[in-house]
Amino acid sequence: MTGVFITFEGGEGTGKTTQIALLAERLSALGHEVVTTLEPGGTALGKRIRRYLVSESDDVPTPRAELLLYAADRAHHVDKLIRPALEAGKVVLCDRYADATEAYQGYGRGLELSLVRSLNRVATQGLMPHRTLLIDLDPELGVRRSLQRQAGDDVAEESRFEAEESAFHRRVRRGYNAILKSEPRRVRFIDGGGTIEEVKHKIWSELADLFSSGRRRERVTGTDEQQ
Amino acid sequence: MTGVFITFEGGEGTGKTTQIALLAERLSALGHEVVTTLEPGGTALGKRIRRYLVSESDDVPTPRAELLLYAADRAHHVDKLIRPALEAGKVVLCDRYADATEAYQGYGRGLELSLVRSLNRVATQGLMPHRTLLIDLDPELGVRRSLQRQAGDDVAEESRFEAEESAFHRRVRRGYNAILKSEPRRVRFIDGGGTIEEVKHKIWSELADLFSSGRRRERVTGTDEQQ
Repeated sequence: MTGVFITFEGGEGTGKTTQIALLAERLSALGHEVVTTLEPGGTALGKRIRRYLVSESDDVPTPRAELLLYAADRAHHVDKLIRPALEAGKVVLCDRYADATEAYQGYGRGLELSLVRSLNRVATQGLMPHRTLLIDLDPELGVRRSLQRQAGDDVAEESRFEAEESAFHRRVRRGYNAILKSEPRRVRFIDGGGTIEEVKHKIWSELADLFSSGRRRERVTGTDEQQ
Repeated sequence: MTGVFITFEGGEGTGKTTQIALLAERLSALGHEVVTTLEPGGTALGKRIRRYLVSESDDVPTPRAELLLYAADRAHHVDKLIRPALEAGKVVLCDRYADATEAYQGYGRGLELSLVRSLNRVATQGLMPHRTLLIDLDPELGVRRSLQRQAGDDVAEESRFEAEESAFHRRVRRGYNAILKSEPRRVRFIDGGGTIEEVKHKIWSELADLFSSGRRRERVTGTDEQQ
């Protein structure tokens, strides 16, 4: 595989969508073919699954069903979109991936981490990002931002996670920080509290080495060891 | 748990739906509270998942995504419907369960059996039926019956499995027979080639011991050991 796989992680309202768009612009200007995608919902099937995961409904998935639906979305996404794009040499920018399931369903919901990780392995077939940007922000601020944004457009129904209690969001943040500590080469900390421009520069400083042609070989082999 | 959990398995067009209705009638007449259900689709969430599993679509799940969607449907079904009904002392008659995933996704699609079984364990949390009726029929005859039935009602769109090649259906049948051999106490063979009345009598002869009050204790502990 000759492409580059970069994921964005973090809680609600941390500005991932904005930053992914800015990064895609920069990489395109540098001549890269860029695919931006998201989880859940990166494929046609995934968009259908996404509705049951992020919207309120009359039959909200139980925690184990939720975990398995995320895994189904991911397995399909990897097979149909991410892996083929990487094999074609493209840069894939993905808004949330396996780490999100560990942070939200593992740390947030309290499902066993060994179960979450084993389902991540089934879903990803071992395909992990070359680099992950963890945009960190105080959850109370992030959730407020996210709800404000949704009030202004037509995704207002996507409120299931924003509606979680603040203790849930604090557990998720703790989960992300644990992942950061365990894989410091792959996962990079970004303070989401700055201006859009500041965050954009910080992100690029954590990625530039992947796109300097002299280090091309290193990027493919330079991720942390996965067990 | 004081209820009785009975599952029906077999290929397409083997008459499971008819036989479940007849058995429910008999058990109700004997004074049991009976719940009839099915997989996929035994819950509101499951009905939505079912559409992506059994109908033709523009984005058919990859084999691993399919396996994970079945597991999500099952996990939700067990938590929300099957286990509560059994705890309330009801008889649950379920059209397909974990064995179907082993036969269809394992033997039929060729996914690793160890993966299929581990996802079944995640989804069922170890809840296996007290007894399983495997209705066996020549797949060519069964698929023909199933398509004829669908032409006569409004489920004509549920054709994704019927459309599989006959080699697929032969592998599924072989899978069911392997399960039968490995768990002869739980799984009982029913020849689906007889008349509706004949099959109905055969089924009852394989279940009567579960409902004779003197053997009440045995039925709860009498399933085969699960590994």
